[in-house]
Amino acid sequence: MIPRYSRPEMTAIWSPETRFRIWFEIEAHATTALAEIGIVPKEAAETIWAKGRDAVFDVARIDAIEAVTKHDVIAFLTHLAEIVGPEARFVHQGMTSSDVLDTCLNVQLVRAADILIADVDALLAALKRRAFEHKLTPTIGRSHGIHAEPVTFGLKLTQAYAEFVRVRARLVAAREEVATCAISGAVGTFANIDPRVEVYVAEAMGLTPEPVSTQVIPRDRHAMFFATLGVVASSVERLAIEVRHLQRTEVLEAEEFFSEGQKGSSAMPHKRNPVLTENLTGLARMVRSFALPAMENVALWHERDISHSSVERMIGPDATVTLDFALARLTGVVDKLLIYPEQMQRNLDKLGGLVHSQRVLLALTQAGLSREDSYRLVQRNAMPVWRGEGEFLTLLKADPEVSAALPAQEIEACFDLGYHFKHVDTIFERVFGTA
Amino acid sequence: MIPRYSRPEMTAIWSPETRFRIWFEIEAHATTALAEIGIVPKEAAETIWAKGRDAVFDVARIDAIEAVTKHDVIAFLTHLAEIVGPEARFVHQGMTSSDVLDTCLNVQLVRAADILIADVDALLAALKRRAFEHKLTPTIGRSHGIHAEPVTFGLKLTQAYAEFVRVRARLVAAREEVATCAISGAVGTFANIDPRVEVYVAEAMGLTPEPVSTQVIPRDRHAMFFATLGVVASSVERLAIEVRHLQRTEVLEAEEFFSEGQKGSSAMPHKRNPVLTENLTGLARMVRSFALPAMENVALWHERDISHSSVERMIGPDATVTLDFALARLTGVVDKLLIYPEQMQRNLDKLGGLVHSQRVLLALTQAGLSREDSYRLVQRNAMPVWRGEGEFLTLLKADPEVSAALPAQEIEACFDLGYHFKHVDTIFERVFGTA
Amino acid sequence: MIPRYSRPEMTAIWSPETRFRIWFEIEAHATTALAEIGIVPKEAAETIWAKGRDAVFDVARIDAIEAVTKHDVIAFLTHLAEIVGPEARFVHQGMTSSDVLDTCLNVQLVRAADILIADVDALLAALKRRAFEHKLTPTIGRSHGIHAEPVTFGLKLTQAYAEFVRVRARLVAAREEVATCAISGAVGTFANIDPRVEVYVAEAMGLTPEPVSTQVIPRDRHAMFFATLGVVASSVERLAIEVRHLQRTEVLEAEEFFSEGQKGSSAMPHKRNPVLTENLTGLARMVRSFALPAMENVALWHERDISHSSVERMIGPDATVTLDFALARLTGVVDKLLIYPEQMQRNLDKLGGLVHSQRVLLALTQAGLSREDSYRLVQRNAMPVWRGEGEFLTLLKADPEVSAALPAQEIEACFDLGYHFKHVDTIFERVFGTA
Amino acid sequence: MIPRYSRPEMTAIWSPETRFRIWFEIEAHATTALAEIGIVPKEAAETIWAKGRDAVFDVARIDAIEAVTKHDVIAFLTHLAEIVGPEARFVHQGMTSSDVLDTCLNVQLVRAADILIADVDALLAALKRRAFEHKLTPTIGRSHGIHAEPVTFGLKLTQAYAEFVRVRARLVAAREEVATCAISGAVGTFANIDPRVEVYVAEAMGLTPEPVSTQVIPRDRHAMFFATLGVVASSVERLAIEVRHLQRTEVLEAEEFFSEGQKGSSAMPHKRNPVLTENLTGLARMVRSFALPAMENVALWHERDISHSSVERMIGPDATVTLDFALARLTGVVDKLLIYPEQMQRNLDKLGGLVHSQRVLLALTQAGLSREDSYRLVQRNAMPVWRGEGEFLTLLKADPEVSAALPAQEIEACFDLGYHFKHVDTIFERVFGTA
Repeated sequence: MIPRYSRPEMTAIWSPETRFRIWFEIEAHATTALAEIGIVPKEAAETIWAKGRDAVFDVARIDAIEAVTKHDVIAFLTHLAEIVGPEARFVHQGMTSSDVLDTCLNVQLVRAADILIADVDALLAALKRRAFEHKLTPTIGRSHGIHAEPVTFGLKLTQAYAEFVRVRARLVAAREEVATCAISGAVGTFANIDPRVEVYVAEAMGLTPEPVSTQVIPRDRHAMFFATLGVVASSVERLAIEVRHLQRTEVLEAEEFFSEGQKGSSAMPHKRNPVLTENLTGLARMVRSFALPAMENVALWHERDISHSSVERMIGPDATVTLDFALARLTGVVDKLLIYPEQMQRNLDKLGGLVHSQRVLLALTQAGLSREDSYRLVQRNAMPVWRGEGEFLTLLKADPEVSAALPAQEIEACFDLGYHFKHVDTIFERVFGTA
Repeated sequence: MIPRYSRPEMTAIWSPETRFRIWFEIEAHATTALAEIGIVPKEAAETIWAKGRDAVFDVARIDAIEAVTKHDVIAFLTHLAEIVGPEARFVHQGMTSSDVLDTCLNVQLVRAADILIADVDALLAALKRRAFEHKLTPTIGRSHGIHAEPVTFGLKLTQAYAEFVRVRARLVAAREEVATCAISGAVGTFANIDPRVEVYVAEAMGLTPEPVSTQVIPRDRHAMFFATLGVVASSVERLAIEVRHLQRTEVLEAEEFFSEGQKGSSAMPHKRNPVLTENLTGLARMVRSFALPAMENVALWHERDISHSSVERMIGPDATVTLDFALARLTGVVDKLLIYPEQMQRNLDKLGGLVHSQRVLLALTQAGLSREDSYRLVQRNAMPVWRGEGEFLTLLKADPEVSAALPAQEIEACFDLGYHFKHVDTIFERVFGTA
Repeated sequence: MIPRYSRPEMTAIWSPETRFRIWFEIEAHATTALAEIGIVPKEAAETIWAKGRDAVFDVARIDAIEAVTKHDVIAFLTHLAEIVGPEARFVHQGMTSSDVLDTCLNVQLVRAADILIADVDALLAALKRRAFEHKLTPTIGRSHGIHAEPVTFGLKLTQAYAEFVRVRARLVAAREEVATCAISGAVGTFANIDPRVEVYVAEAMGLTPEPVSTQVIPRDRHAMFFATLGVVASSVERLAIEVRHLQRTEVLEAEEFFSEGQKGSSAMPHKRNPVLTENLTGLARMVRSFALPAMENVALWHERDISHSSVERMIGPDATVTLDFALARLTGVVDKLLIYPEQMQRNLDKLGGLVHSQRVLLALTQAGLSREDSYRLVQRNAMPVWRGEGEFLTLLKADPEVSAALPAQEIEACFDLGYHFKHVDTIFERVFGTA
Repeated sequence: MIPRYSRPEMTAIWSPETRFRIWFEIEAHATTALAEIGIVPKEAAETIWAKGRDAVFDVARIDAIEAVTKHDVIAFLTHLAEIVGPEARFVHQGMTSSDVLDTCLNVQLVRAADILIADVDALLAALKRRAFEHKLTPTIGRSHGIHAEPVTFGLKLTQAYAEFVRVRARLVAAREEVATCAISGAVGTFANIDPRVEVYVAEAMGLTPEPVSTQVIPRDRHAMFFATLGVVASSVERLAIEVRHLQRTEVLEAEEFFSEGQKGSSAMPHKRNPVLTENLTGLARMVRSFALPAMENVALWHERDISHSSVERMIGPDATVTLDFALARLTGVVDKLLIYPEQMQRNLDKLGGLVHSQRVLLALTQAGLSREDSYRLVQRNAMPVWRGEGEFLTLLKADPEVSAALPAQEIEACFDLGYHFKHVDTIFERVFGTA
């Protein structure tokens, strides 16, 4: 998490201020629950809320205490006692530090997920708008980087849209994975705390109770969360790389928006580089890399060890902040993408009609030739075109074996772009529910 | 995928025989659909089914053809034509190789997921049985590898059970991710094939149509699939490491089953090593490692490149076969685990009662002492016990400050194991729906 | 490791036959050393060599024994006793299984490294030949996928050559890392075996003695080995992706060799796809992924656990076989690469002279203009060219401010390609030692 | 990189102040070289040094300029011109941004490597001191977590020492990998800058010239650097996990130093948790994870894309700062480790003498019994001991078949600890050069 690739809303989730605020809420809700059950005085709970609700927790002070105690929750509770007074002794009754830490982490991850889901919604909106805008803009479809057959630019974006619909569903599932609360004590037995406290705090914090915890919330949940983020980042990378390819000098079918003051290069003033999407490619590598340590965090020893903690202090913020930034940047790229239909047409025409070869092949087969013969005829007319020696249509019409099988009119019909787009509506219907 | 860590049912999914059989089914169903739409003669479709349904595809022959054509689907179609005769020219009409390859891969992954889900069901059954068997077997709960407070061995297994319930749900979701079919032609536009063929084949193969494909089914689906397997493997590792810890010479609370003929060591005949769970630890590392290349596979160029193919040829079998083997092995370990309640009790007693310190702390607080004072009193009596200088209960009773706050009877009550297990039923209810 | 991506020489290293042969050699050399020290009879050692030297070890028989003993080395020794007779009791004296297993693994890795180094040598030879062949073939240099300034195709290959010189050095270092032998007994103390045996066996097997082992050879060595292979794979990927870019339809500056019988696509007969280098991209992902489990293998428990074993049974063959295949395939690609200088020139000319903009910028600065003014002048003439509205040279000469600073002749001199290649010899000297 | 896991010396390397200082030095040295060659006036170079040498670069000002230009080097040069005045136009002549950025990154990595190497030296010193201190402290060697045979605690540390000697050598090699300088212009051809400038700057900055660069220094170097750090982190993890195991309640052979004010748990005051080494386990996961994105950075497109940049902005600081912190923390742990020889002896005695079983086995074999018979005899006496039914020595002496083969005295001799330590000196000689 570095400022360059951060946005304030997501960063705020991971600030010490937010963390202490969430800790307070968990502790205070737990005290309220304890008061309702009759374990601690109701007045104590009320005092804690009254004095703590709007308190500003002094991060420097807590850090100073932790420097001595080497224990963050004790440091916080000590500071809380300074604010709340003697009633503070009713706070944290029967709880263990992890009850606070783990529930807090999950609150943070849930909030982060909410932002990420909103990010995806914005991206989906941009993709949809541009997809409809270019629903029928012809462009070459490529496999292996080689021209294949015509598609539309809208279809490309539809594909991306469908992918990010899946992304959204995965983020919702990932959010569910970590939306749990544990207030179960030192080894998860509720020996010193009534399970009703957990149920109460969970509901108050927008979580569900963890069915069985040890001292900690099991880390397979978090592994699934961060693994999902890694997959999401890979989808970001895919669309970013598509833009990078489209912006290549020789292709130039689209370009990232280029602001006026921006200089592409200190040396080559004409250059307009796809730096945003190149950046996204790198950010995707980072978010992806966090999946592994998250998975290694699962196998904690016995009821828990604390090896996961340092990992989560890093990847918690890093993964969510970076992915949030990446999604927002990608949305900007899509939203303002400069799209060049004329250049798309020029590229489509580049191969002298070869992109229609499969259609000719099919027409020959349907005219009764064997698959092998059809293939041979198409290939022998395609090869000269490939070498820049003529147009495919002309050569086909001049080939006696082809002519014998297909009248000129039928050969020409194979070169109709509309033929390729007749199911665009079907696909749009499938993906957007409307065409 | 090596035979040592493979089981035949899963391995069979990835054999060339199975692959060609699935290819045939896809091609034949597509031809039937084309016949229903009226594109190819119904008799052709019938002949293809008649001659192909029980045909044995000659793997060596197909390999030989591929050695020349360097194209696997063309090689298969050529061989199919040898079997089916002239009607073979109606096969693969308007389709592209990836229609067959990608739909086949997804059929294989779905079948693999079905086996993995069944594996988890077997594991869950074993965990549940052993959990109830040891529902109230006392054992020490440990955090940081240090004795904390009592739990029951059944609770440990309940935790594992709950984790594998999540694993199961994740596998079901992963299966859904890849249960799609694409028959959409060279760049996914259905230019040469009616979308109804895709719908037909999808249903026939137990899949759903991919809403929008390019030439290929988008690889974010597969990335999610393999990432999920990596997370699942991490849960396998967790339980395996728990067993390894329990079997340590100094702990010895449980042991892997040790068959009669088995030799633990060529040099030290007394040794009984947790080799199965050590093995599972290694296998988990492997399954986890496959998540990364699967994620890197997402960003294919434009409508597709084929870089994903070599990765999938490896991790498709490797990840599923290895995880299947690991889950089955883990089930065996759980099922036959030798559990030593007496040794658990000995370990529980090891710390001279220190495991009850939190309870004493709480009792002191509830008796009106400040948190800090209570902590100080507990710690000053705990430290000698830790050094092996006395029993905790004795020292507490002899401490005047403690006695002043708590009568001897109340101190003794803090050492009651039953206190810790009073919510075991609650947890069992939560996890198993019954206690 | 799958046959499709395997070459026999490397695969043979990992066959059971080779493994048992190496085991025999280690055991037999150790017995010889023990005989020299006087621990076992010299005749015993001689008998073992005499009967074992040309023996064929029966893999199926050893597997059958292992199925009972569940211990591979004991199974082998049992079979060896069947071959050698009563003298077999002098084999493995004071040794532990890992002495054999780990030393064998290192012999295999050293042999694998030797093949990989030879692979790199072949690749270097191909790169050098093609580099000199195209030492002065002009082509556009690109940054961010955007045309930058001219380079030569030979320079591109020189860069690759220099990278693979580093690759070679890294492989030599990786080979050194694993070229050790341990014959140190059950916990590495030499309690039951004289250290001189280790020294003897090490020398006989072409290794050096491990200074201190536990029961096993420390796995940081192997982690370094496989991490190095991952880095090497990344260099393979880089060159592969360069070829894929060059073969793009719009670029087409080079192509993988296309054999006569090869079909690019079942549907589009004109297609010539860079399938070899796409394949290399995928293989690189796999080899890279093996670095992680190798690193996780380092932290074995205490004097050893066996979690590394399953990992190494997989990645030992998989990483070396796949990388060997990839390097050989890459060498073939380079060796037979179709290179199109005319198309390179066409692409060079594509931007209407903009690739010379930096030179103009520099000339203006040297003529006394400020950096900012020079930049402004270059950019205002570059932008129309970028939009396809004119040639850069023409516009510059027509710009009064530019003309005021630079006479026409000096502007024209900025467009000389030779200017860019004046240090090609220097670079070739640096990299090849000759130009 | 988070403050909690950072040390100031390493963090300083990555501050904007340091970065701009290095940029200045590179630019100023380059100008000096240009002046020596006669391209720019000597006075200009002198002025630049005179005004820049002690200048404080205003980070906020540079950031503000970059916010407009979106180009960091141009922003810096603009600010430098504000400090230097008109002579600034001679700065950066013929250079490209990457000349500055990449050379700077390598300077930073080299400095980071120097700190890491010094860290390892400190760790080695601590390991050596403690190894000699406990050279002959008996402790049980364990394989699979099961007692095997006696070792000394010094031997354990010797193993770690030897591992970190390798770590040091790897760090030195990694430092070499990145100790290069490129001043070669926009596409690495030296078109606009004399290669002698690169040579001059390289020497001035303590680097060697990159033999051939593109626009950037090739990233296989950095991949190797970060992969090495990942392997180093795995060695850190190994030693950390050893300590964690030793500190387990049931083992308790060693403990992390426990400072007075430190509280182990908010709930269980007696707890002394190995939190430092658990933390190191997590940090190792992080450092390891950075290897993957570094490897993915290698395959930049053509002469460069900028996808590596965001990755390096993160992992450059994160990997080096985290590993520096980890090494320093590990040194502290080793230095102050509480070591309990008496508990080691207690554990050694735990198995009733079974740890000597291999020696008995060997003695029986040497007394003429077959391997199989010896094994059977040892195992039948070992099994009751394992079940806690007697002492191994007593049982062996009472076994008539054993007695028949070995006189009581010889059986007893098998239980001598000194036997196991007779080669400790040899191993110390090998590793430390002195015993």
